[in-house]
Amino acid sequence: MSPTKARSACPRVPGFKAAGLHCGIKGENPDLALIVSDVPAQAAGVFTQSTLVGAPVALSRENLRAGSVRAIVVNSGVANVAMGVRGESDALKMTEWTAAEVGCSSKEVLVASTGVIGEPLPMKALRRGIPVAVESLTEDGLSLAAEAIRTTDTFPKWASRKVKVGGRNVTVAGIAKGSGMIEPNMATMLSFLLTDAQVSSAYLRGVLSRVADRTFNRVSVDGEGSTSDSVMLLANGHAGNERFTRRRQPGAEAFEAAVGDVAESLARDLARDGEGATKLVTVEVRGARTAGEADAAARRIANSMLVKTALFGGDPNWGRILQTVGAGRISMNLPRVQVKLAGIMVFRNGSSCGPAARRKAAARLEAEEISIELELGAGRQSAGIWTCDLSYEYVRINAEYTT
Amino acid sequence: MSPTKARSACPRVPGFKAAGLHCGIKGENPDLALIVSDVPAQAAGVFTQSTLVGAPVALSRENLRAGSVRAIVVNSGVANVAMGVRGESDALKMTEWTAAEVGCSSKEVLVASTGVIGEPLPMKALRRGIPVAVESLTEDGLSLAAEAIRTTDTFPKWASRKVKVGGRNVTVAGIAKGSGMIEPNMATMLSFLLTDAQVSSAYLRGVLSRVADRTFNRVSVDGEGSTSDSVMLLANGHAGNERFTRRRQPGAEAFEAAVGDVAESLARDLARDGEGATKLVTVEVRGARTAGEADAAARRIANSMLVKTALFGGDPNWGRILQTVGAGRISMNLPRVQVKLAGIMVFRNGSSCGPAARRKAAARLEAEEISIELELGAGRQSAGIWTCDLSYEYVRINAEYTT
Repeated sequence: MSPTKARSACPRVPGFKAAGLHCGIKGENPDLALIVSDVPAQAAGVFTQSTLVGAPVALSRENLRAGSVRAIVVNSGVANVAMGVRGESDALKMTEWTAAEVGCSSKEVLVASTGVIGEPLPMKALRRGIPVAVESLTEDGLSLAAEAIRTTDTFPKWASRKVKVGGRNVTVAGIAKGSGMIEPNMATMLSFLLTDAQVSSAYLRGVLSRVADRTFNRVSVDGEGSTSDSVMLLANGHAGNERFTRRRQPGAEAFEAAVGDVAESLARDLARDGEGATKLVTVEVRGARTAGEADAAARRIANSMLVKTALFGGDPNWGRILQTVGAGRISMNLPRVQVKLAGIMVFRNGSSCGPAARRKAAARLEAEEISIELELGAGRQSAGIWTCDLSYEYVRINAEYTT
Repeated sequence: MSPTKARSACPRVPGFKAAGLHCGIKGENPDLALIVSDVPAQAAGVFTQSTLVGAPVALSRENLRAGSVRAIVVNSGVANVAMGVRGESDALKMTEWTAAEVGCSSKEVLVASTGVIGEPLPMKALRRGIPVAVESLTEDGLSLAAEAIRTTDTFPKWASRKVKVGGRNVTVAGIAKGSGMIEPNMATMLSFLLTDAQVSSAYLRGVLSRVADRTFNRVSVDGEGSTSDSVMLLANGHAGNERFTRRRQPGAEAFEAAVGDVAESLARDLARDGEGATKLVTVEVRGARTAGEADAAARRIANSMLVKTALFGGDPNWGRILQTVGAGRISMNLPRVQVKLAGIMVFRNGSSCGPAARRKAAARLEAEEISIELELGAGRQSAGIWTCDLSYEYVRINAEYTT
């Protein structure tokens, strides 16, 4: 996996500082991240839709209701899920300890934890670590935070965009962690997006909801969903732009596009870095009878173990693609069905395009970024998903990941 | 994979003959199977619910409507799917050639094909092979037929039961092939069940429908469904029992139980022999709010790549089990949730049962047959599924399976 993205300089966002360090939760690696805004920031969040939710998610949801936010504290290594009353109390302590050092209310602190489920958070390590993190805050600390939130990620993930609105420079930056268990609807993934734009709270929530729907919720590594997935967006107003309060306002569209670009870059990196992944795969389904069928077809293809192993093997196997879509009872009009693999048409008019097309597609499937395009011929709806292949390495990582 | 089942003697059913041989579709292995009843038999079938259906499935469905059946002809190696008009004509020819040799109408012949999708059937091989198969028919040929329908199966599968009804011996026997891509609703699997019972056609259809629902439709290897799945049940009446015409009739219950036992034995073998499988896994979900949620929870667990790799690794990872159920938005009442792995309680009262329980469960997970029992604490509905683990071998088989 080429860590291309990680080599670009990690961005600064005016008015935000960050830190990342090892506090003692896991081995030798950084395991505690902190992001602080120097003024109360507007904040929005989208979270896992699982019926089993980690204590940090529950607490962050609650604190987001209260209004503005000063800090986000995150640990990796232990997820603080299914720990009952103790889990709730531990998540609360993380916000209290952070608030005490930052000098704000604990309600102004968001919290996230990622890692093993069902083990207690090592609170002594966090008690010691949080003050050190606050002392280590720097304007350039976002890359360290991106390191500290990793679990099985093979590279840290960040992205940023600048956009000019009404003569003011607005910065948007974000970090993310993902790897296994990533599915749309915020399944096992953390992302923290920061901007210095001046915005209303309701507007910000709208931006995040729309952006997440077409970026983070369109990534699927293995069809799983986690208990802790969280995307948070903070806006501290430092840019001094005319406050965005609605979508159709000068500059607001450009701003939302910038947030979308950052989120899309992170989302693609999440798929690219799926556990054991060797390829980033873009699935595009067109011609579906309904939007629901378009989405279901894209997800079935993205999550099919048979399709994913074929991609790992570089096999232009359109049969498995049609088979998994058919098994989902998704309408297709076979004489109008088309399958393109890595840009090469391999199935058309109800039958194979033959061995020459297959060979050409097989050669193209060697690339690190490939596409599957499926025309169902049954209607006008479309949907896309980013995913990855399924390799021996996925099995190794997940057969040997602790108990 | 221990071929235990295959070592038992392959059964005979009075009035049926069978054959299995190599006709030249694939390498050196048997690839053509034939089953013939010496008199017209009552017949029932259940088939894939995919929206992409192979020509043999379409033709067999049609012929079953016509009434009685004399023969089933099956090839492995090429599935005859997505081949348009040629596919339909090839399937028809298989029935015509068989009918000509057996001496019956082509409408009295059922047909099935399994193997690669999107390639033409080698009709010359079949033209030569079918007469040879008819000449090779013997009363002991069912084991050869079981061999000939294999694709990636590591062992041939058969089972039989005898039951006495009204002083008459009734025999039920069956063969099956499965391996990858097996999911409930008849996803990639063939099974042929034979009995000498005397039955009405409507009764036989009811028996097969009920039996398939609780056996073949409760197997899931990788959540996929095939275009060619077929289960066929033939009853030729040789036993001379008082004709079964309804469920509540003396002996009918015992007969249905025998059909169920044969089907269950075959279904378990299909899970046991999933591609690359090292363990047969029984998933039992209880305490679900609705029957739909019970079924969805069992299927999510059975098809979760994370759960399956953990089982391969012998990891008593209840976290992944709860996570995939939660991600399916299935109701659970966490304080009442319980997880048992291989009979050992590892999660109860909203939290882990601790490292000693985990170690005990890990030791038990070394076995070749293991169970996952989940109590959701949310209601009274339950559901079960047979599945298998996910190994390196699954990836190897499916990354390297043709193009």
